Amino acid sequence: MTQTNPSGFTAHIQSVVPDGTRSALIQQVLPQLLRTLPDIAQALRSTSVSEAGSANSFGDNQLNVDVLAENIIRSTVAQCPSIVAASSEEDPNETSTIGENVTEKEQYTIAFDPLDGSSIIGPNWTVGTIIGIWDGQTAISETETPRQKQIAAILGVLGPRTTAVVAIRVPGGTPTCFEVSVANNEINIIRPSVQLQLQTKTRYFAPANLRAAQENPKYLELINHYISQKYTLRYSGGLVPDIFHALVKGHGVYISPITSSSPAKLRRLYELTPIALVIECAGGAAVDSADGTDILDRPVRHTDERGGLVCGNRDEVDIVRSKLLT
Amino acid sequence: MTQTNPSGFTAHIQSVVPDGTRSALIQQVLPQLLRTLPDIAQALRSTSVSEAGSANSFGDNQLNVDVLAENIIRSTVAQCPSIVAASSEEDPNETSTIGENVTEKEQYTIAFDPLDGSSIIGPNWTVGTIIGIWDGQTAISETETPRQKQIAAILGVLGPRTTAVVAIRVPGGTPTCFEVSVANNEINIIRPSVQLQLQTKTRYFAPANLRAAQENPKYLELINHYISQKYTLRYSGGLVPDIFHALVKGHGVYISPITSSSPAKLRRLYELTPIALVIECAGGAAVDSADGTDILDRPVRHTDERGGLVCGNRDEVDIVRSKLLT
Repeated sequence: MTQTNPSGFTAHIQSVVPDGTRSALIQQVLPQLLRTLPDIAQALRSTSVSEAGSANSFGDNQLNVDVLAENIIRSTVAQCPSIVAASSEEDPNETSTIGENVTEKEQYTIAFDPLDGSSIIGPNWTVGTIIGIWDGQTAISETETPRQKQIAAILGVLGPRTTAVVAIRVPGGTPTCFEVSVANNEINIIRPSVQLQLQTKTRYFAPANLRAAQENPKYLELINHYISQKYTLRYSGGLVPDIFHALVKGHGVYISPITSSSPAKLRRLYELTPIALVIECAGGAAVDSADGTDILDRPVRHTDERGGLVCGNRDEVDIVRSKLLT
Repeated sequence: MTQTNPSGFTAHIQSVVPDGTRSALIQQVLPQLLRTLPDIAQALRSTSVSEAGSANSFGDNQLNVDVLAENIIRSTVAQCPSIVAASSEEDPNETSTIGENVTEKEQYTIAFDPLDGSSIIGPNWTVGTIIGIWDGQTAISETETPRQKQIAAILGVLGPRTTAVVAIRVPGGTPTCFEVSVANNEINIIRPSVQLQLQTKTRYFAPANLRAAQENPKYLELINHYISQKYTLRYSGGLVPDIFHALVKGHGVYISPITSSSPAKLRRLYELTPIALVIECAGGAAVDSADGTDILDRPVRHTDERGGLVCGNRDEVDIVRSKLLT
């Protein structure tokens, strides 16, 4: 089933959007954004070799890698006329290029976290890049929801290999979630359909901010529920690898609760909404642990909105909803 | 502090062994084994691109990568006259080349796990290579302990970067533990001293086989102790990345308990003894959860001996000893 770019990748996306539409998304926006991933992976390698000599200065090194990743994506954005606005965790002002590109038929805004998982860069664990792709000239809206406006998302997985999960859900099309590898400028589909399945041999859980269980008895009970039901623990502390683990295994539940002393910290625009789109396109559910509502059903009104996250297989999210969020 | 091979690497090792000794270890065995790591990382990438198309056949893919890694190390062993015997998780018969190399002044045996962490290769998480280096013509003994015979260990960390922790403790020398990066045939010291420190801001725990807490109330109590004391959870399920996390952060405790329904499964020769040497050289402790004794104090009598593991900062291991192993 291995398919080679460009035919396999392009054909796959064409088959999930209405006939003859979205050519800029297919030919330009998605492939060019995916091709930033090997460059970010390379930046991660080079920075380490040249600068990680002093453990004390590691904070600075991480910052450097973040900035390198940011610049790589920004420079790709500059080459994509269809991307008319961009906003990132590093530079949250929505930079608009709409003045120049007002004639573009397709107009997209991207919102991205160039390098997620800074606490695990030092130990050389897998980290990730998160990109949401939105219809129109902004991702921000007082009334329109991410479900209406966000039409694709990329989770780049920077590990031993450079892979990515791509989710696409455009009006009139078929929601899809698939895995690609990106190397030597080639994009290969390595898993044409990524789906969270109801029936799996092993059940996984990823409990974020476990320290919150100390002050939240419901969270502690939930943890003990997973232990008593013999779920397998996998928790890297990196949002992308933790979500990707569930997608590859076909099962998983990720829980990032909100308590009085641990307020919402995940960024809705750069983390929660792209992840929610991926999870939904893979057949799962993603809700905000602040109120139990679907993440994609509330407009993103500011770039710095925060939230909590419970996501994974639908039945697992229902269990968390009943045990933690009521 | 970044140092370039060969001078930095060689000089560092020369400073921790008795003057003028161990030249084959320094010039040949350690650098050549370290240089297998980028090749194994490359094998991991290539296999994925060419064969991971079908999720169903992933078991086979993993097997292929294991075999590729095994072959890469074996072919290096064949080029190192001082390595007179080798044994691995994939091929546990101690292959001896002593007939040919009986004239070598320095004689070493290596015991290795070419690719540890098969369950997390699919999700593209960091995995590792484990190598123990033993004095003499075999690692197996009825009477001599690993503490007497194992003189060096390598934990290769195959993540976004290719790094390794090297531990060396030869009779008459100074125990050392340091981190290197390996790229383009160059070995660079990126952290000259890796030490588990008593005082750190954040305390980490990695509870392996958490399902065992269901039938072992002491393990469940221990987990609840970490939660109540607000330890931070990091558990990838890969032995090398989990241990390496503690080493880089300067703090961590890894617990792999043994219960009636989850018997000892970590291999003493290919996993436990090299990891124990690394942890001890970093100032920590590594005990077998079967009996609470130091892993390095019991001879390895068979290649397939198994054990449990509790390791990390000394004070943390003492806590586990008092709460779980008594």
